[in-house]
Amino acid sequence: MAGSTFGTILRVTTWGESHGPALGAVVDGCPAGISLCEEDIQFYMNRRKPGQNPYTTPRSESDRVEILSGVFEGRTTGTPISLIVHNTNQHSGDYSTIKDIYRPGHADYTFDAKYGFRDYRGGGRSSGRETIGRVAAGAIAMKILAEIGIEVHAYTRSIGPVCLTGQFNPLDALTTPTGIPNAEISASAETYLRQCMTERDSAGGVIECITSPLPAGLGEPVFDKADALLSQALMSIGAVKAVEIGDGIQVSLSKGSQNNDSFVMQDGQVTTETNHCGGILGGMTNGSPLLIRAHVKPTPSILAEQNTVTTAGENTVITIPGRHDPVIVPRAVVVVECMVAFTLADLLLRNMSANVASLHRIYDK
Amino acid sequence: MAGSTFGTILRVTTWGESHGPALGAVVDGCPAGISLCEEDIQFYMNRRKPGQNPYTTPRSESDRVEILSGVFEGRTTGTPISLIVHNTNQHSGDYSTIKDIYRPGHADYTFDAKYGFRDYRGGGRSSGRETIGRVAAGAIAMKILAEIGIEVHAYTRSIGPVCLTGQFNPLDALTTPTGIPNAEISASAETYLRQCMTERDSAGGVIECITSPLPAGLGEPVFDKADALLSQALMSIGAVKAVEIGDGIQVSLSKGSQNNDSFVMQDGQVTTETNHCGGILGGMTNGSPLLIRAHVKPTPSILAEQNTVTTAGENTVITIPGRHDPVIVPRAVVVVECMVAFTLADLLLRNMSANVASLHRIYDK
Amino acid sequence: MAGSTFGTILRVTTWGESHGPALGAVVDGCPAGISLCEEDIQFYMNRRKPGQNPYTTPRSESDRVEILSGVFEGRTTGTPISLIVHNTNQHSGDYSTIKDIYRPGHADYTFDAKYGFRDYRGGGRSSGRETIGRVAAGAIAMKILAEIGIEVHAYTRSIGPVCLTGQFNPLDALTTPTGIPNAEISASAETYLRQCMTERDSAGGVIECITSPLPAGLGEPVFDKADALLSQALMSIGAVKAVEIGDGIQVSLSKGSQNNDSFVMQDGQVTTETNHCGGILGGMTNGSPLLIRAHVKPTPSILAEQNTVTTAGENTVITIPGRHDPVIVPRAVVVVECMVAFTLADLLLRNMSANVASLHRIYDK
Amino acid sequence: MAGSTFGTILRVTTWGESHGPALGAVVDGCPAGISLCEEDIQFYMNRRKPGQNPYTTPRSESDRVEILSGVFEGRTTGTPISLIVHNTNQHSGDYSTIKDIYRPGHADYTFDAKYGFRDYRGGGRSSGRETIGRVAAGAIAMKILAEIGIEVHAYTRSIGPVCLTGQFNPLDALTTPTGIPNAEISASAETYLRQCMTERDSAGGVIECITSPLPAGLGEPVFDKADALLSQALMSIGAVKAVEIGDGIQVSLSKGSQNNDSFVMQDGQVTTETNHCGGILGGMTNGSPLLIRAHVKPTPSILAEQNTVTTAGENTVITIPGRHDPVIVPRAVVVVECMVAFTLADLLLRNMSANVASLHRIYDK
Repeated sequence: MAGSTFGTILRVTTWGESHGPALGAVVDGCPAGISLCEEDIQFYMNRRKPGQNPYTTPRSESDRVEILSGVFEGRTTGTPISLIVHNTNQHSGDYSTIKDIYRPGHADYTFDAKYGFRDYRGGGRSSGRETIGRVAAGAIAMKILAEIGIEVHAYTRSIGPVCLTGQFNPLDALTTPTGIPNAEISASAETYLRQCMTERDSAGGVIECITSPLPAGLGEPVFDKADALLSQALMSIGAVKAVEIGDGIQVSLSKGSQNNDSFVMQDGQVTTETNHCGGILGGMTNGSPLLIRAHVKPTPSILAEQNTVTTAGENTVITIPGRHDPVIVPRAVVVVECMVAFTLADLLLRNMSANVASLHRIYDK
Repeated sequence: MAGSTFGTILRVTTWGESHGPALGAVVDGCPAGISLCEEDIQFYMNRRKPGQNPYTTPRSESDRVEILSGVFEGRTTGTPISLIVHNTNQHSGDYSTIKDIYRPGHADYTFDAKYGFRDYRGGGRSSGRETIGRVAAGAIAMKILAEIGIEVHAYTRSIGPVCLTGQFNPLDALTTPTGIPNAEISASAETYLRQCMTERDSAGGVIECITSPLPAGLGEPVFDKADALLSQALMSIGAVKAVEIGDGIQVSLSKGSQNNDSFVMQDGQVTTETNHCGGILGGMTNGSPLLIRAHVKPTPSILAEQNTVTTAGENTVITIPGRHDPVIVPRAVVVVECMVAFTLADLLLRNMSANVASLHRIYDK
Repeated sequence: MAGSTFGTILRVTTWGESHGPALGAVVDGCPAGISLCEEDIQFYMNRRKPGQNPYTTPRSESDRVEILSGVFEGRTTGTPISLIVHNTNQHSGDYSTIKDIYRPGHADYTFDAKYGFRDYRGGGRSSGRETIGRVAAGAIAMKILAEIGIEVHAYTRSIGPVCLTGQFNPLDALTTPTGIPNAEISASAETYLRQCMTERDSAGGVIECITSPLPAGLGEPVFDKADALLSQALMSIGAVKAVEIGDGIQVSLSKGSQNNDSFVMQDGQVTTETNHCGGILGGMTNGSPLLIRAHVKPTPSILAEQNTVTTAGENTVITIPGRHDPVIVPRAVVVVECMVAFTLADLLLRNMSANVASLHRIYDK
Repeated sequence: MAGSTFGTILRVTTWGESHGPALGAVVDGCPAGISLCEEDIQFYMNRRKPGQNPYTTPRSESDRVEILSGVFEGRTTGTPISLIVHNTNQHSGDYSTIKDIYRPGHADYTFDAKYGFRDYRGGGRSSGRETIGRVAAGAIAMKILAEIGIEVHAYTRSIGPVCLTGQFNPLDALTTPTGIPNAEISASAETYLRQCMTERDSAGGVIECITSPLPAGLGEPVFDKADALLSQALMSIGAVKAVEIGDGIQVSLSKGSQNNDSFVMQDGQVTTETNHCGGILGGMTNGSPLLIRAHVKPTPSILAEQNTVTTAGENTVITIPGRHDPVIVPRAVVVVECMVAFTLADLLLRNMSANVASLHRIYDK
């Protein structure tokens, strides 16, 4: 299928299934000389780990990441960085009930349709564990971005109808079980989630991501616009069904005079008075912070009974056994953050050859 | 920059600026033996042509497409298809007022930031005329899809606050100046547009695209999910700021029991009772029609005065001369349709090597 | 087929057939700000033009190149550069004798086998005219390389058994009809060619290419080694059947103590005493000049009668009508030169993000 | 650097250094449903293992390959296949003598020039152990090719001046320590090698690879010609300095009447009377066996003293400690075989969408 690689200069290839011996990623194209150790990556891995609060699956995985190549004496060497996380807690054999039935909202049927059969254990390649490789790669991208002072932060904007309002500090997302950077609103969201669980049902939500002001000019003018690649990056995360940049869907209701961000000089720099565009104009960053949102569907695995069909083509009903996350959003926050970071780091490297002045800056003696 | 190419097996490379001698595209990877003539492409080109109604720029371009290679005796040969459209109506010299000023909402500043200078005539490469190559390529993709009976149709869903409701026939989009496939609602949208013009302002809107039921299994499981690539495809169109698949942003408010599409057997085929997922599960088509939406910002060129800065870094005001489209949406409908078709045709070809049964189907004697 | 594009950051896509209306290329990824005009390119086009001496086909084409995009006010803009050459002298209708017969040594049969049919006029896409796009793209690469003082020169090393010996100036290749940079040896080669023509036969030869000393570090360590990509580049030229780097095939007879190039300091620079390696170690340039050779087969179109088969599967004999180049080599010299230049320019741009020092050199304020 | 991936539909990404904890590869794009187990791969791994005879390094590695993903119940699933080989016998600390000195003929200097520093332990990424990933990937390609009956066999054609002659069975390459498929000639080569060792020197050689007759039409007409990609594949192997297809360098001395392979019908099939072209015409396979050769330089690590420079830029002499393979060729035979297999398997998959008849063969119900 050859769709497991993302990026142009900075490239990640992920591999692994829910119930195989391990999952991982290979990151190629990272500049040499970046300081990197396993703890740099583990910090992000821990944020996506299961079993951290009542709203995530209790499957207890340590998810320790190991660096197998590409780092020497604490610095990247320019050669591919291979990352691995061993699966330690998978239980094959529990999957007899879903082996011959297509779970609604899952990729069971589409995998069979494409490949002729599937690894039915825990979703196989379409499991949420596939994001391990994304997070590991994103952590490396964060180190590249940090070299020139760029930060990327994601947080939960809403769960079901409960939405973040008012001022907030994105870093507070790390302090609540929902990822909403406001304790009170997070508590409301938890109430909503407990209700969903009582109803044997699940909830969706919205994840937002912002960055520090980016260098102007990242992104390529036509098909590889910064917003286009970021959309691919986020829409490629399992349960995401919509992506917005800046004002997003609101632009259709806005007028040009409202939606345009006026340019203004500030401290000798071109900047904008507002940021309706989310930091991107014509597919290239304009020096403002990036603002992007991903809309996440409710967990498809629910305890309630559902109509479906068997692999043999008979109508049936299914009750998916086990305990399920009532919402995907909190654990997907770090995945969004990492995919944004990875996309930006790649665009940062791609932009280095944009003009002849850069060529001279690198090669003139 | 190397971002002017889209697709993996079926690939398009577009080129050309608003005020150069011509624009065009090269489509590589089209299977040999597809019937193709210039009229097949011109049909789509005519739908994006300027000057067709009161809401589009009066620049009168014939936009005749020529096929320069890759077709012999009425059929594609498997070699690259080069397409060209000559610019016949560009007037350089009118652009002195914008040469030294950054227009709000446009790519003027970001082009300068990236490349060090820009072709300031009519937006250069970031002009809406860049979509000529996309439409030409999409028309070829339509012919590939038609070989196995797939149709793709886009239409305007809303302009400003005026939104399509009720039953409709997507093909009626061709019968109204707004692209809304309902004459009455289209008339309301026109009223809104005239009001915007009176206010020297502009409007946004939403474009929706549906297809006939697709073969199940198109799309690749991880980064090249069908929805991820479609999002890139649509977000790469100039003024698009949000993309939704199926229920899109509504999923965040939905519950699993509502959002899951139950599978059911119908005429011996696996199908779903609803289509909240928009025809895609786990990044692969599930046999249902695709449903996708693009949110388009209001035209940034407006007659009203705006604050901005000069290329020399001084605050100033700008009044953009000339007549401007009060809304981009109607002419972008065919661009959305063509980008969806192109993305699907590429995924159709990519899917041909998905399993060993296909290998035998092609190579066994 | 999607094989008409070459390069990673600097990318060229070529298109066009022998008897279509035009041929051309799109070069994407060229840094902005490089001085470029049509004459820069025409200089190289003229060197591959037919009809310049007794050993090239008399088809008289002016082969004027036009730049259709990507250049503004004499400088590249960073957007794709579209190049076109109109066919002015093609005569369809002369091809009835080869329409239904497979010419030995040509791609007629393989095209039919792959695509189901072919454009039989003058070889279609497999004609030598396909190299027009390569030369046009290579001319742009030369301008990029010239920015940092790199020159690339190819010349004929041998035709049949007549081989260049002694000291020579590569630029003298432009002064002889054979491309051999030595008038006397060239005259011997001409004698050999006239004999081949008398025998209704054709000759092969060897083209060599050298560069000025290259920056050290170009090329990527594993699959995209400089020598690997250069080999692809040269072997992708129609009649090339072997590629050698440095001592090439002689290395199999050499010993380590002879073949290793000793490092030595010279003017404070690491350099080598010899250049058996042809300027490449471990796939990366070592600061020495590149040395590479391509072996070219004899023109497959000959006047002598040959055994072959018809498209209907019957044995037959063929006598290919018309006048043919008795040797491909002289006109392929500039093609080799251009492909080497293009490959190196791409590697030059790819290398710009190799290490963190470069990152800071571009982005630090 | 992003050069660690090879292939278009079937893609391999390799990773790992000589003295890291492990090396490996990720193979993406393998069709689902191919039977595959670790022993299928181990067979090829064992052929490249060190320590098997007097002419290979005694570093004793078990080189056991593990499949970490992409295979379920004995069949490929269509998802990426991750392969790992743990390093068990590396001794860091022995490398103090080469840490600060550039070994002639090695990539030490070019790595430093590109990246600013290097992993100096055992050559790091430029070690011969990098080929582990190539061989593992090639073994999977062999399984794909075997589905339609294609076999690939490489063998040593010459070592120094000792060259294979007469009739032979390629499979006999497995029976001699040199890989020459003739016991007597192999014995002569061993005599030559022992002499080189006595002289504290090393030898080069030639590896040849043939296949069973291939389906006609594999390869893409322009830059991705079968021979062009095969050249990249072979030239990307560490010590290879020349690649020949079919008659290779002999074509420059041949005439068209000799070099053309006449077509002739045989059992209702188009075939050729000779195979000077090595099975490729116009970049596409013509139904004959492929014939390709790689010329391998002598091992650069020799016991004899050599002039070189230090990383600090001082002239010095180096004597490389330890025992070294006096020749690379025998262990590289399987690497050549595997790279050819991988390239062909990718072209086989790419060719599946070449024409509209194939499209209908896959998608028509």
